[in-house]
Amino acid sequence: MDISQPGDLVVLINPSQRCHIFRLQPDGEMQTHRGVVKHNDLINRPFGTLVKTHLGYEFSFYKPTLRDILLHTRRQSQIIFPKDIGYILLRLSAGPGARILEAGTGSGALTTALAWAVGDHGHIFSYDRRADMQELARLNLHQVDLEDRVTFRLQDISEGFIDADLQAVFLDVHDPHHYLKHVRNALQNGGSFGAILPTTGQVSALLEALELHHFSHPDVCEILLRFYKPVPDRLRPTDRMVAHTGYLVFARMLLETS
Amino acid sequence: MDISQPGDLVVLINPSQRCHIFRLQPDGEMQTHRGVVKHNDLINRPFGTLVKTHLGYEFSFYKPTLRDILLHTRRQSQIIFPKDIGYILLRLSAGPGARILEAGTGSGALTTALAWAVGDHGHIFSYDRRADMQELARLNLHQVDLEDRVTFRLQDISEGFIDADLQAVFLDVHDPHHYLKHVRNALQNGGSFGAILPTTGQVSALLEALELHHFSHPDVCEILLRFYKPVPDRLRPTDRMVAHTGYLVFARMLLETS
Amino acid sequence: MDISQPGDLVVLINPSQRCHIFRLQPDGEMQTHRGVVKHNDLINRPFGTLVKTHLGYEFSFYKPTLRDILLHTRRQSQIIFPKDIGYILLRLSAGPGARILEAGTGSGALTTALAWAVGDHGHIFSYDRRADMQELARLNLHQVDLEDRVTFRLQDISEGFIDADLQAVFLDVHDPHHYLKHVRNALQNGGSFGAILPTTGQVSALLEALELHHFSHPDVCEILLRFYKPVPDRLRPTDRMVAHTGYLVFARMLLETS
Amino acid sequence: MDISQPGDLVVLINPSQRCHIFRLQPDGEMQTHRGVVKHNDLINRPFGTLVKTHLGYEFSFYKPTLRDILLHTRRQSQIIFPKDIGYILLRLSAGPGARILEAGTGSGALTTALAWAVGDHGHIFSYDRRADMQELARLNLHQVDLEDRVTFRLQDISEGFIDADLQAVFLDVHDPHHYLKHVRNALQNGGSFGAILPTTGQVSALLEALELHHFSHPDVCEILLRFYKPVPDRLRPTDRMVAHTGYLVFARMLLETS
Repeated sequence: MDISQPGDLVVLINPSQRCHIFRLQPDGEMQTHRGVVKHNDLINRPFGTLVKTHLGYEFSFYKPTLRDILLHTRRQSQIIFPKDIGYILLRLSAGPGARILEAGTGSGALTTALAWAVGDHGHIFSYDRRADMQELARLNLHQVDLEDRVTFRLQDISEGFIDADLQAVFLDVHDPHHYLKHVRNALQNGGSFGAILPTTGQVSALLEALELHHFSHPDVCEILLRFYKPVPDRLRPTDRMVAHTGYLVFARMLLETS
Repeated sequence: MDISQPGDLVVLINPSQRCHIFRLQPDGEMQTHRGVVKHNDLINRPFGTLVKTHLGYEFSFYKPTLRDILLHTRRQSQIIFPKDIGYILLRLSAGPGARILEAGTGSGALTTALAWAVGDHGHIFSYDRRADMQELARLNLHQVDLEDRVTFRLQDISEGFIDADLQAVFLDVHDPHHYLKHVRNALQNGGSFGAILPTTGQVSALLEALELHHFSHPDVCEILLRFYKPVPDRLRPTDRMVAHTGYLVFARMLLETS
Repeated sequence: MDISQPGDLVVLINPSQRCHIFRLQPDGEMQTHRGVVKHNDLINRPFGTLVKTHLGYEFSFYKPTLRDILLHTRRQSQIIFPKDIGYILLRLSAGPGARILEAGTGSGALTTALAWAVGDHGHIFSYDRRADMQELARLNLHQVDLEDRVTFRLQDISEGFIDADLQAVFLDVHDPHHYLKHVRNALQNGGSFGAILPTTGQVSALLEALELHHFSHPDVCEILLRFYKPVPDRLRPTDRMVAHTGYLVFARMLLETS
Repeated sequence: MDISQPGDLVVLINPSQRCHIFRLQPDGEMQTHRGVVKHNDLINRPFGTLVKTHLGYEFSFYKPTLRDILLHTRRQSQIIFPKDIGYILLRLSAGPGARILEAGTGSGALTTALAWAVGDHGHIFSYDRRADMQELARLNLHQVDLEDRVTFRLQDISEGFIDADLQAVFLDVHDPHHYLKHVRNALQNGGSFGAILPTTGQVSALLEALELHHFSHPDVCEILLRFYKPVPDRLRPTDRMVAHTGYLVFARMLLETS
């Protein structure tokens, strides 16, 4: 039986998928949108059970999945969505032991996923020029106990990157095509590059710059995620969906032959 | 400088994205679809360089990403696509240290991704009733040096699972709704369940069974991946795309309250 | 110069695409959501000009297109969307001179499009069992001067259809698979059948019934319409979109050979 | 009973949706991909019946729908697809009586749809600078008896349009943004403009030009059509689909106020 302990990161989910993610501490109180739950009632409780708030509303009690954590990142900016993050991890080979650079940090959703995926032996270097954003991201990573895997660099990337020999670099910044020379300096030879971009003009500009800076095999794609109403005898897509988060661009660094 | 060594897993990619993935061994030969490359010419070579076959065709020389590996899994059956695998990993929290069960093994693409993602401290239990498929999957995992992270079970899952206390169970079998009782026995309380299903009728049957077997928060979705022609001044989607691989269904196990 | 006349159907559109469609009458007043416009200021005015309300808000003054009319159908029920209607017209060959039956009438959006498309020499027969819906549809058709092309039948279609020898029959009802015998009686031999259905289970039931009732060449599809933000240097899809209106099913009636 | 006559346009469709469209003439022979059918065996035959070729292969015998005709347009160039044409007709109000200009003619699929939709009292003006394309389009329109509704203009549109006072203008040419001044001269004040464009850069260029030339309410969209395998108990989308035909752009002409 899997029983919760003080210090565990847990999630309460109501029937309409509303989530609260927090860490259990003795005598703590969780203020949900439907009433209060005392942490002491959740400590030493089996996961996968139903809990009631003081107002009588029911929540399910679980360990959060990575997707729960990403969707509920505290944010001051648009985060990268799980549908995109899952694919980015595969394209960058962001698994155990990987060393990866990202810019900008933003609210830290991708930072969290990268830090989670690379494990204790990997490391993430995350650049942003805004101190407030990095503080928020640091807080988000602290809550899920992943801040040790991330080195934050408060720095404008137009000045270049301090870090080098990285397996992959991912840019979520306004004009990624301006920074490819710096990306080359940060990457291992043969390393992977990725970026997310909202507009078609930015994609074209990046593709042009990738060719100029000796990246090969550029790939542009977008991922659409469509949910269904999970009713057995009335199965159908939801009425509305997210139509666009960003275009994903990937490429690989070629060594310049002299 | 990142230099290849004997024993490295490497990839040759031609301009039209055709790939060959293999392991370097002294005096080996790689027979591409455009002529032969000698392994000795690839050993002690920097990654990110261009190589020519004996017929003069050019390939880029890289370390394969996880996505390269998945796309080039040797197969006797339809594999799960990277677009779906990336999202499955997030939904099942398949990261470092995770212990996860899957059935069926099939050609082993998802098995490979899971084994890769959970690292040295995680473990995958993979069930299939067909010995030939498991041999193929074992071979695929051997090539990428991940077979130690997987325990193969040659077993019809209608007899149940031997393994228990798993964080997540994923089914890629014909009628997953038949096996939810067994899934409950294999899962930790509160664990995550996932499945991939080609037809709408199977989804409805699974949703009905999930409710019956005390799973909560069912989620049905599909992921569409659209590629673009990566030409800066002629940016446009490709003419055709994969329209369907499968519906993804996720849910969480609730403890039955007596 | 194309100048408006009393009696013309016109549209006022504001910069955020908010529309008001109405018929010009001397001394009339149009109460927009941004102030009043006097009809006398719109009569004898060239189309394609800008007009201000008494509050100073600007609207463009045009003749409405069919799509404007459809989108602004007064409704008490979900209407069929223009994206689906355009394709339905092609599939049913709903052009000048066609005679087509539809059920149910609903708010009359498809009725309007059909009546518009078949011209003076075509005719539409529209069935619904709810008098209030047919009154609303009649009103909608009256406003666009198309009611003479439609015969409304206030009738439960489980009793069958009065009309026969029709080129096409389209069903937008809850369980179309119950009525295929009646559809056969209403259709010309070789005629076209269409239906719109929200759920996958209904589609399966209809496909089964179509085979049973000697329809051939069944076709199931869905149409997704994605809009872009029309900003030249920031071109990108809108953030959200309609993900589902309904599945479209088409088939053709085979004569039963004795 | 609807019985075929000499001179009728008819279609033979085999079980895998392969079509042959032709006009019945006494003593004619139709060479299908599965053997010959004599026209005399089809004349005075009820529509909606099954016919066998001399090799014993079975076809269904129907009147073609507009979509059948469009899909089987003889072509030397990419045609506009029915999914797009249906929506274009609604946006341009291309119904009975309409007068519409299009360029280029191409193989004439859109020309056919427009001519079909506007009826005996409407008219289409179709421009192309290539005589061979217009001959092909003329042939395609002749086969479906619609050539009287179309005036072909063999002319480079950079020289402008001869025709004026049109309700709508549609451009399917390489650089539509070059011709908006001419479009204004051809359109009625307040008229509708549409275009189809394969690449994002062309869309941006057109949006910029539309603003410059006093068009209002620009709208950019794309239509995706996804087919399903029509098997009742195995309902699922087809494996592959058309991912892109073109971006559709619509706008309305504002009078320039002096």
